[in-house]
Amino acid sequence: MRIIAADSGTALLDKAYRPKVVLTAAAVLVEEPFTQPTAQHFRLIEEEYGKPTLLLHELQVIAELCARHSCDVIHVDASLGGAALETLSLVDILGLRITPQAKQAFRTIYPKLRKMVDRLYHQHGVSILAIGKDSVAVRIAELATAAYSVVAMATRAAAKAELLILGLPRMCTIQVQGSAVRAASLEPGEHELIASVEDRGNAVERVRLREFPNPFLRGYRILVIEPQGG
Amino acid sequence: MRIIAADSGTALLDKAYRPKVVLTAAAVLVEEPFTQPTAQHFRLIEEEYGKPTLLLHELQVIAELCARHSCDVIHVDASLGGAALETLSLVDILGLRITPQAKQAFRTIYPKLRKMVDRLYHQHGVSILAIGKDSVAVRIAELATAAYSVVAMATRAAAKAELLILGLPRMCTIQVQGSAVRAASLEPGEHELIASVEDRGNAVERVRLREFPNPFLRGYRILVIEPQGG
Amino acid sequence: MRIIAADSGTALLDKAYRPKVVLTAAAVLVEEPFTQPTAQHFRLIEEEYGKPTLLLHELQVIAELCARHSCDVIHVDASLGGAALETLSLVDILGLRITPQAKQAFRTIYPKLRKMVDRLYHQHGVSILAIGKDSVAVRIAELATAAYSVVAMATRAAAKAELLILGLPRMCTIQVQGSAVRAASLEPGEHELIASVEDRGNAVERVRLREFPNPFLRGYRILVIEPQGG
Repeated sequence: MRIIAADSGTALLDKAYRPKVVLTAAAVLVEEPFTQPTAQHFRLIEEEYGKPTLLLHELQVIAELCARHSCDVIHVDASLGGAALETLSLVDILGLRITPQAKQAFRTIYPKLRKMVDRLYHQHGVSILAIGKDSVAVRIAELATAAYSVVAMATRAAAKAELLILGLPRMCTIQVQGSAVRAASLEPGEHELIASVEDRGNAVERVRLREFPNPFLRGYRILVIEPQGG
Repeated sequence: MRIIAADSGTALLDKAYRPKVVLTAAAVLVEEPFTQPTAQHFRLIEEEYGKPTLLLHELQVIAELCARHSCDVIHVDASLGGAALETLSLVDILGLRITPQAKQAFRTIYPKLRKMVDRLYHQHGVSILAIGKDSVAVRIAELATAAYSVVAMATRAAAKAELLILGLPRMCTIQVQGSAVRAASLEPGEHELIASVEDRGNAVERVRLREFPNPFLRGYRILVIEPQGG
Repeated sequence: MRIIAADSGTALLDKAYRPKVVLTAAAVLVEEPFTQPTAQHFRLIEEEYGKPTLLLHELQVIAELCARHSCDVIHVDASLGGAALETLSLVDILGLRITPQAKQAFRTIYPKLRKMVDRLYHQHGVSILAIGKDSVAVRIAELATAAYSVVAMATRAAAKAELLILGLPRMCTIQVQGSAVRAASLEPGEHELIASVEDRGNAVERVRLREFPNPFLRGYRILVIEPQGG
């Protein structure tokens, strides 16, 4: 089974550890044993935290990855009980047991969502499941946003000699292995899940990384990226 | 303190990883330090998933284990806040804050449940607590269903030269140690919990086991049992 | 960032593992990397389980630690969404989405709470955030209650030749390292969190410690303290 999934995640934080923007949308192709991406694609989105348009960014990176790789099913990070998005009208969605805020979000993005979902479904003939956090593939995409964001922000921190503070996804830790930046899951039972991004510009060598628990948010870790000698 | 507890669990899955049946009911006797069974008893039930009669199977294996071992209290996998089942009328149960589906389930099975609970209580004089997932003893019974199911399905896969796919209980992994099949907990804080079943027929040697995360259900793992050379 | 936080915890249990009293209130000073206290202060409170006055004990140990150490913010174990207690009237609190029991608790303690919060806020000029279990600093205080309770109860068990049973905080384990009693977190992603108390009277050497899962409450562990030769 070949699953393409997407998620957006990894926040840029201010000095009080409050999220400013969500940095990255990632799409991954995941196959048995469902522990690492066999292909991946990223966009640096720097989108406002909690914006409903995050889902549209996720559909975009999925479409871009689908153009290069086939799959049997698509997973997106929307928790509608695993329903197939291509079958849901706005009325269907508003009839689901989801929060009023989620309904308002879907109302806002529905016309664009509909168009993107229809195009995906007709071009590739696979279901787009709103499975959300239950999907291991979505989780791997979430970890991938962390690996990509670290490389991108290390590059920026080194270029601008600026200290940057990242809020990693829930239960995620960063490991540097040679020229690869790896995001590993700390969630129990997810010890094998890893997403890795090559640091082609050796940006990580030009910064210092410090990782520690977010004191305001148990289960989440902070990564401080400090320019060397800066 | 000697606790006898039961659970039913471990699913047979189809190729799309959807559950077909629940395979096993297990009863265990657990004593301090409450990490492994000191006695256990199994039935291969192959019961429809989510059926209310699962609780009746659990009471049956409990009764069978109680016939051979004494205990101070019985734990069953029904979440009624730890209430003693022998004291609850159907009206009491329907008055509890449980889901409408759970109420309907109890309505269906109550006459048989009542009979089994009364017999257990009168024969052994110990309370039957509806403590559910809070009980470590119920958790050990759940792990035991996995160890037993692996031996039973490896036997079947080898005999029928058929590939079988198991859905393990939440946060559970299988380890083969000599002739023992062990189910260990991956839940944090449960590193010591283990249930083990002897593979007397050496069935596991005649199959290949592959275990990986269920991509549709975070926290759950899949075990593929493939006949050797098959 | 310097955070002072408090929690009360660690129960004395009866032989059926039911909580009798909450033993300890702990205040801790935590600084980056937010994994261990850099200062701490304790009171043995032996307060009834679930009593609303626990929060007052926590404010007291906070006030006592604040008298010796400066901080930028105070975290208390009350889950009011991180609101600043110094800005909340009783009417504000009763308007929040909290349980009726929590409202009744705040009604009971509000006059004393108000006085203690005002004094803290005016003396130290820092916010007292009702952040509750989301705070890593509150979690470290919770672990600290365990380390302190073990030393205190080992002392009592040795002095009175009495067996004592402790209910440790959720996902907490005790390690003895030389003359230090350490409470470590078993929560995923909290592998670095440790609180440690010196056992100055060598009480732990005069008792036997046995730790195992609480069979009635998954995720919690029991520590039996038995006088040596007793």
